[in-house]
Amino acid sequence: MNQRRLVLLAEGSFSPEGAKTAVCVVRYRSEEVVAVIDSTRAGKTVAGVLGFGPSAPVVATMTEALRLRPDTLLIGIAPMGGRLPDAWRAMILEAIASGCDVVSGLHTFLSDDAAIAAAASAKGVRIEDLRRPPPDLSIPTGANKRWKPRVVLTVGTDCNAGKMTTSVEIANGLLRRGVRATWAATGQTGIFLRGKGIAVDRVVSDFVAGAAERLILEASDGAGVVIVEGQGSLQHPAYSGVTLGLLHGSLPHAMVLCHKPPRKTIRNYPEVPLPPLPRVVEIYERAAAWVRPAKVAALSLATYDLSDKEARAAVARARRDTGLPATDPVRFGVEPILDAVLGKPAGRARTPGRARARA
Amino acid sequence: MNQRRLVLLAEGSFSPEGAKTAVCVVRYRSEEVVAVIDSTRAGKTVAGVLGFGPSAPVVATMTEALRLRPDTLLIGIAPMGGRLPDAWRAMILEAIASGCDVVSGLHTFLSDDAAIAAAASAKGVRIEDLRRPPPDLSIPTGANKRWKPRVVLTVGTDCNAGKMTTSVEIANGLLRRGVRATWAATGQTGIFLRGKGIAVDRVVSDFVAGAAERLILEASDGAGVVIVEGQGSLQHPAYSGVTLGLLHGSLPHAMVLCHKPPRKTIRNYPEVPLPPLPRVVEIYERAAAWVRPAKVAALSLATYDLSDKEARAAVARARRDTGLPATDPVRFGVEPILDAVLGKPAGRARTPGRARARA
Repeated sequence: MNQRRLVLLAEGSFSPEGAKTAVCVVRYRSEEVVAVIDSTRAGKTVAGVLGFGPSAPVVATMTEALRLRPDTLLIGIAPMGGRLPDAWRAMILEAIASGCDVVSGLHTFLSDDAAIAAAASAKGVRIEDLRRPPPDLSIPTGANKRWKPRVVLTVGTDCNAGKMTTSVEIANGLLRRGVRATWAATGQTGIFLRGKGIAVDRVVSDFVAGAAERLILEASDGAGVVIVEGQGSLQHPAYSGVTLGLLHGSLPHAMVLCHKPPRKTIRNYPEVPLPPLPRVVEIYERAAAWVRPAKVAALSLATYDLSDKEARAAVARARRDTGLPATDPVRFGVEPILDAVLGKPAGRARTPGRARARA
Repeated sequence: MNQRRLVLLAEGSFSPEGAKTAVCVVRYRSEEVVAVIDSTRAGKTVAGVLGFGPSAPVVATMTEALRLRPDTLLIGIAPMGGRLPDAWRAMILEAIASGCDVVSGLHTFLSDDAAIAAAASAKGVRIEDLRRPPPDLSIPTGANKRWKPRVVLTVGTDCNAGKMTTSVEIANGLLRRGVRATWAATGQTGIFLRGKGIAVDRVVSDFVAGAAERLILEASDGAGVVIVEGQGSLQHPAYSGVTLGLLHGSLPHAMVLCHKPPRKTIRNYPEVPLPPLPRVVEIYERAAAWVRPAKVAALSLATYDLSDKEARAAVARARRDTGLPATDPVRFGVEPILDAVLGKPAGRARTPGRARARA
């Protein structure tokens, strides 16, 4: 993949909670980030805001960002519903006028916007809509009934619970062990990082399962293990259908449940409580079994805003409550998850009440 | 709604199992059907094939059908995936050339097909794609958290289990009782019959729940009860995501579970067994409760291909096994369901083991 000089648009939202695309790009393509636009955090550095990443500045305006000679503007925010805020249009046109390509994960395709498309064409820059689905999707062919690779799906208690990060970390961890592993991107951020994928939340709803199947077929390419980036949550009032379609289309051999402690309700839906983790494990296993049984093999926690002590306690508690291996793969390493997703016996850690966090 | 003179295209499939759009149109707009095209059943009448409906002929070719002066061609089949078989293109163009409007429920929009659109424009006829979604859908606004009308969702053990028919029959039954009831169409057949609706299986998957919410808001219009036509099944390997999105977007007060006895596996998926009815009831109630609890209030069976004795036995068994009111609303009347969906106590029928079919 070519190196880019990225400016990330994350106006008003540059935090792990508010701008997960921008934050994941900082995590995995840190050296390419030259600036972040967020007027509410202007004057700080990326590392100063996030606690990791480059010393690139956070600036208030596109004009300031363009002084750092970016070649690509990435819309680094994924608002609920994914639509383009009107206020951003001028910034996008300004970036195009200075010769930047534009990459967007919004539901509204920038390349379908007449003014933006015309400006890009006049300037000779590319508009890339990460969420644009392939044109010829359909329902599953049945190839998902007999996967050649081992298929592992990350699932979550909620959106923004670390499913993409966990998928990347598991794939990288397996590669380090010499396992031919890869991961399949199902959301805009993952597609940007991976260079390919299908945004399953943007496909025709009848074809979510078919899109998942195709994605795994294309991603596998001789791999022994394919980690599929999950989406949403079965408990999510807006996105649960995407989650179930992805589960039944990918028909995984195992699942890894991602959670952001201490979250107790669905993000933006304070009236929808999150069940305790053992209950969420049961929910996913039951829902998988409606078509084909699969177990949750391990837990992945996103503890980035907890103290070290709190994070260790959260991991230990998750492990004790569920009897499953648990870790924060970014903070404590992904190792505890790897044996579990390969289907190897996890020893005493699987006995609830006796387990200890190794992290 | 204007009366039409309909020719139904159901090539190779004119049966309740194979062409549900065509068969439902025969059931509810019988007097408008002038011919059905199905070369494998040509020479019979509609009534001769289905056991109900008009004496309109089943013919082998469009040329024969056009002699009966239809003004509208309805694509009366909903193949898996919904795409246009190449062989039908010539028939559609022939109908357009003779001045017919064309109504289609396919996933592939006929009005986007250059040749078909050009022919229609030249002839001055209309192409209506029932599945085309409104352009401005998004996620739910939250209006579904506090419905004014009572919302009842039909759900199913499978596709093609009578959800649309049950929705129509419940709405009509409530209207006969003087209840201000209506139904909301979520699929191509329902949209054709109802004259409005949203094909939720054709919307962007992120927006299924939002589409459901909007549909109910638009349908309710002062109604005291809105029956929402369900789609697919939580156990369906291809369409389960649509089903869950519709459930969590419509957030019903009650559900009516539809089943076609004696089906034991998902249609076209012999490797996916249907759980027993009490277990399916539990599955839907659990899945609803992930966001907001709702009960299955009654069962609706589609017994059209059973004998009278078999049908009565199936209804009695469903009632006994679940403790819920049950009926085939077409064959035995919808009455047993009506009290249940209004939330009235159903008396002794709710005690499993003691219940008797009233039907």
